[in-house]
Parts: sequence; structure tokens; C-alpha cells
Amino acid sequence: MAHRAIATKNQGHQVVVVLSAIKGETDRLLELARKMASEPTPREVDQLLATGELTSVALFSLACQTFGERAKSFSGFQAGIQTNELHQRARIININPARIRTELAKGRVVAVAGFQGATSGGDITTLGRGGSDTTAVALAVALNADSCEIYTDVDGIYTTDPNICERARKIEKISFEEMLELSSLGAKVMEIRSMEFAMNYHMPIHVRHAHRSNKGTLICEEDTDMEKKPVSGVAYSKNEARITLLKVADQPGIAAKILSIVAASSIVVDMIIQNQSVEIEPATGEPHTDFSFTVPLSDYPKALELMQDTAAEIGAERIVGTDNIAKISLVGVGMRNHAGVATLMFQTLAKEGINISLISTSEIKISCIIEKKYTELAVRALHDAFALDQG
Amino acid sequence: MAHRAIATKNQGHQVVVVLSAIKGETDRLLELARKMASEPTPREVDQLLATGELTSVALFSLACQTFGERAKSFSGFQAGIQTNELHQRARIININPARIRTELAKGRVVAVAGFQGATSGGDITTLGRGGSDTTAVALAVALNADSCEIYTDVDGIYTTDPNICERARKIEKISFEEMLELSSLGAKVMEIRSMEFAMNYHMPIHVRHAHRSNKGTLICEEDTDMEKKPVSGVAYSKNEARITLLKVADQPGIAAKILSIVAASSIVVDMIIQNQSVEIEPATGEPHTDFSFTVPLSDYPKALELMQDTAAEIGAERIVGTDNIAKISLVGVGMRNHAGVATLMFQTLAKEGINISLISTSEIKISCIIEKKYTELAVRALHDAFALDQG
Repeated sequence: MAHRAIATKNQGHQVVVVLSAIKGETDRLLELARKMASEPTPREVDQLLATGELTSVALFSLACQTFGERAKSFSGFQAGIQTNELHQRARIININPARIRTELAKGRVVAVAGFQGATSGGDITTLGRGGSDTTAVALAVALNADSCEIYTDVDGIYTTDPNICERARKIEKISFEEMLELSSLGAKVMEIRSMEFAMNYHMPIHVRHAHRSNKGTLICEEDTDMEKKPVSGVAYSKNEARITLLKVADQPGIAAKILSIVAASSIVVDMIIQNQSVEIEPATGEPHTDFSFTVPLSDYPKALELMQDTAAEIGAERIVGTDNIAKISLVGVGMRNHAGVATLMFQTLAKEGINISLISTSEIKISCIIEKKYTELAVRALHDAFALDQG
Repeated sequence: MAHRAIATKNQGHQVVVVLSAIKGETDRLLELARKMASEPTPREVDQLLATGELTSVALFSLACQTFGERAKSFSGFQAGIQTNELHQRARIININPARIRTELAKGRVVAVAGFQGATSGGDITTLGRGGSDTTAVALAVALNADSCEIYTDVDGIYTTDPNICERARKIEKISFEEMLELSSLGAKVMEIRSMEFAMNYHMPIHVRHAHRSNKGTLICEEDTDMEKKPVSGVAYSKNEARITLLKVADQPGIAAKILSIVAASSIVVDMIIQNQSVEIEPATGEPHTDFSFTVPLSDYPKALELMQDTAAEIGAERIVGTDNIAKISLVGVGMRNHAGVATLMFQTLAKEGINISLISTSEIKISCIIEKKYTELAVRALHDAFALDQG
């Protein structure tokens, strides 16, 4: 990375580089901590983990020397990154970039240890996994940077997973909102938290490959260009399971009751569907409905058990569930102004003989739950139907 | 170390533990730095090296947990250790132990990263090799501790090297002055700088084995007990070479001139002997003398070359040198009050047929330069002659 930072500087920019620990180092340190104590104190774990990024920035600065550049490294604390006291998942509450500005003014490249900060009392904190992205974005905002480049192991954001669809195309420019929807669907190039932060502060993000010099994907404010195409990308997720409550008494507050039971166990519900068509139960003359929701795959057994335990209380006749599902989503800010996206999506899936078991929509996203085995088929068919290979 | 710290705390003490990096870690980091840059910037090297001790203290604190103890780790900076700006060999200029005191008052064990501090500007510095001892002593002084225990890989200080002399005996108590003389002669258990610091601030040092619980050696102020025996220990060094200038014109300032030439090349001269008996050079009628000095073995070739280059200028007839020497020293504060130590030393060596080529004395030390092959023989003979095996 040293030569890239220097090349950017030589183009007339002031450069601040945020670095993560060397690959595997954080895990190694965590394992060491767990060897020492079965439930290691978060404060001490943070003291330990912070050394990973410290090592990276010091080595980076030394590497800059080889290219004739005087760089200066800073820990999160030295960089003025103040956080709250939630060790291992701290949030940045203030940045005082005075020391960084001083070094930039001297013409130096500045390297800042990502993923870490310090409390007002001087205790070292870490921001949790992916925290280096947050550090980068927050520093870019605090320094009023032109943009924040995120170096990763992919070329940029693609219209869909290139491993599934060979016609997947790299997107040149995408809006924060679209990117957030894609991120939450598993197209991980950046932590959602840091993306939200960039969006809130209007800081453009340039996602680039760490070892290739070609342009990546610019994530920025929505602009008029973006609306020409109704759909920007097709995403999928195989990490969900569906639970359906059959013949639930359709009374006010019943949905809230069901979800509060799940939420009480810290299970995050994704899609929630209650059928609009209400039938009358012949035996009782009461209206009833079916109620479905999806949960992360890892929480599925627990959620299913919870529902079965409370079926009578909720007044559900039967609980059924399956993890044999996939979620396929179309994302695009242009969707708002184009009628017929949903229609084309459903037609495309129908033409392939793929049954849709749940549908949910937001302003810039339509998601369908289908049988898992059709995932790749559905992704390719939709990519073609919306001509996403054509930029 | 965790269980020892806790055991000490359970005896009713407040405990601050200073730790070094895990064995080999500092060298590993230094090597990494050298791979990155041929002449790594000292500031960045310090940022890098400091992570070694940070890792140690965090792991130590976590290990304390396993024993049910809440420990807190601090970097040098967090511990309030302020240094000057000489990276890689910084000196402590102030300690503000407020945070340590706060944690001690809460009944916590405190672990402080040794070997490091920070400048007033917040840059991380390291104190140079052996710096963890300095940190320990300086903190002990700042906290007004009862004593400072140094955990090392030996049981304590011995009357001589047990590898050479099987009758070597562990010394229970020794004065700072004697210890300083022994240290400078190669009996390394502690850095000289930190020993001087302890001496200046009257902080008793207890040298103990890291993995054995027996009592070690107490290094403290000279007291009346110590003066019963004239000699405390026999030390030796094989790391010196001797240079002799033959027939130097005996003029005022000639010694200073010779030594300034050597000093200008940053070579540290140890023993300096100018024969008192001055002969008259028959040819010129001028008085002349022989002049000898010893230098570290590693500087010998350079020092010899320097002398040969300037022999004419100095007015020396001939320069001879040898690295086939050893220095044998007797050390003891009791020496001051006992006549005959030198006599017995010379007699003992003579009885073994060992020739003495240089002698130098200080208040509590007598050193002789002998032929290298007699080193072990001389050590054993002197240890017996002064009955050092009897406590």
C-alpha cells in the first residue's frame, strides 16, 4: 500500500491511510486472550487487539521510507479518536484531528491504526469487526476529505455475484441507499455501520482492489445518472429460514405479540408477511390469517422452538418452518420511477418455473423467497431480464 | 507470573508488575522493521517495538482473571511515564502515577508495559535494551514502593560464575556499589542504568528467579554486616583487548592526547595504565614511558589502527596489542577497611604461575589483566583464597 499512498500524494493530495491488522492477526490475538482467561475482560482484550493495527501502521510508515517518503504512524488514541466506553464494540463520539493536520501540513503521509480509539479516561477501545472502515470514514469526515477509498479484495461492486453469473458487470457508480440494501443482502465489501456513517455525512466512498490499480466503484449520493436504469443489481442470501404460523386468530396486536417473543431472544426478524386476505374460521366464526417471517439461519432452531412453545398462547393452529429457502432481491433507486419492475421479476421467475413463497418490497428493493435450489438460476434469469450486463 | 503477583497481593501488599516483551518478540519486530526500511525511522521503530510489551501486559492481566483477580494493564503512556524525545534510548524524565494509584486503591493488580514511555507530545518512545528494569525501578521510586523485585533467569547474585567455580555461593545481600562493579564486569542480571537509578533513590532491589520461589539476592544500601568480609565476589571479562604504546615521550598532556583520539571514534576505554617509573631515553636524553589501555574486544582492530596511524604524532616508538587477555576483578566494600587484599590477590595468582600484565584499582575493586587461558584457574584460585564459599 505504501507506493499507492505515495503516488496519490505525488498527485498533489494530502494522504491519510487507515490500516487494519495483518490478516489473521486479530484472530490470533483473540485466541491468545481466550487461552489466558475463559471470559477475558473486554478492556484487556482491547489493549491486546489494538496492538495488531499498531504493528501495521508502524510497518507501513517504515515501508514509506523505502520510497523516500517520511510517514508518521498514529494509534487511534494518538489520532484523536475518542470513543464511548463499550469495549470491543465502541462507537466513535469525537475526533480531534489536530495532530494529523499538523503532520499533513508538514507534507507527511499519515498512517492511522484502524479499529481503535480511546475513552476520555485514556482506556484503549476497539470498534468491533470491520471497525477499520468506520475509522476511515470517520477520519475522512473529520478531515473534510475529498473522498474515502476502501481497499478490499474485490474490484468493486458488481451487478450480481460474478461466481454465479458470468455476465455480472462492475458498477461504476452506485448510491448509498442501494449499497446499503446490497450490503444487508450479503454483498459485503464494507461494514453497514460505516456505510451509514458515510451516507449521513455525504462522504463519497471509492471501493477498490488492494492490489490492482483499476478504478473500482464509487458509492455516493444519488444523482440523476443513476435513475436511468430501474435496477442496479441482483442480490441473494441463503442464510435465512422461514417460519409460518397457520390459522392465527386475526386480532389487533397479534403480530406485535409474535415478534416480541422472538425479539426477546435477540433474534432479528428480516421479512414479515401477514396475508391480507382474511378467511373466517367455520368452527368459531372468527377471522384468521397466516403469518410468516424469516430469521437468520443460525437462529432458526431457537425461533422455531419459541414459536412452538407459544403456539397455543398466540392462538396458532400449527407452526411450520423450513430452511430450504433463498432470498433473491432486486435493488435500484430507479425502481421508484419505473413501474413494472415487480411484474417483470415475477414473470421471469414464473417462466423458469420458480415458485415465490414470500414477497416483500421497499422503495428501492423487491425481495422474493424461493426454494433454495433455484438460487443461481433465478439470479442469472433476473440479471438477463433486466439487461444488467449492459452499463 | 500472575500467581506470584496475586500471592504477594494476598500477603497484604499493593502490587505493580512491569513486564518485558515475550522472549524473542523485540528481535522479531526489529527484524520486521529492517525488512521494511534499510534505516528505519526511530519514531516508527518505537511505535512498533512498544507493541511487544503491550501484548505482554494485556495477556498478564487476562491470566490474573483465571486466578479470580481483576488486573488492569497500562502502556507506558497510560502509566504516566514521560520521557525525553530520544527514540530507542529515551530517558524517563517524569512519572505521573495517578492512574496506577487509583487502580491500586481499588484493590487491583496493575501491569505496566516496561521499556516504554511517551514524550510530552504523545509520541511513543522506548528506553533501549534492558529498559524494563528501568521502568520497574523508576515506578517503584515514583510509587514509594517498599522494594522492587527483578525476576530473571538466575537465582540471584553469586560470588562468582557458578559455571566456572562449583563452590560459587549465592550472596544474600550486596551493596549497590559492589553490584555496579560486578555488573560492569559482565555479571549481568540487571542494566547498569537502572541499578544506578535504584542506588540514587535508595530503592532496594530483590533479584529473584522467575520460576523458583526461593529467596534471591537483596541489593541495597551498604550496611555494617557487609563489611565483615573484605571481598564479595570475583568477576571476570574476556571481552577486552589491550593496546600498549612503547617508549612514549613523557610530556604533559600526552595521555589526554592519546585517549582523545580513541574517544573521537566513540571507543570506550576501560583500564588506563601509565608506568610511574620513567626512564631516560639514552639517544635524546628525554624521559619516556610505556602507556597501556584496554578497549572492548569489538573495537580492538579499529583502536589498534588508529594508534598505528598516529604513533609518530604521539611520539611512540612502537604500538603493540593483544586480544589474548582476560580481566579478573575482586569486588567488595569491605576492601576499604582491610589491608592486604591486593597482596593476597597477587600472591594467589603468582602461586598459580599467572603473570599480571596490568593492574588497576578503585576503592572497592582490584582488577588484573592476565593471559586469557588462565581465566578459570584464576577465578577458582581467588574464590578459594578469599574463602568466598563461606557465607
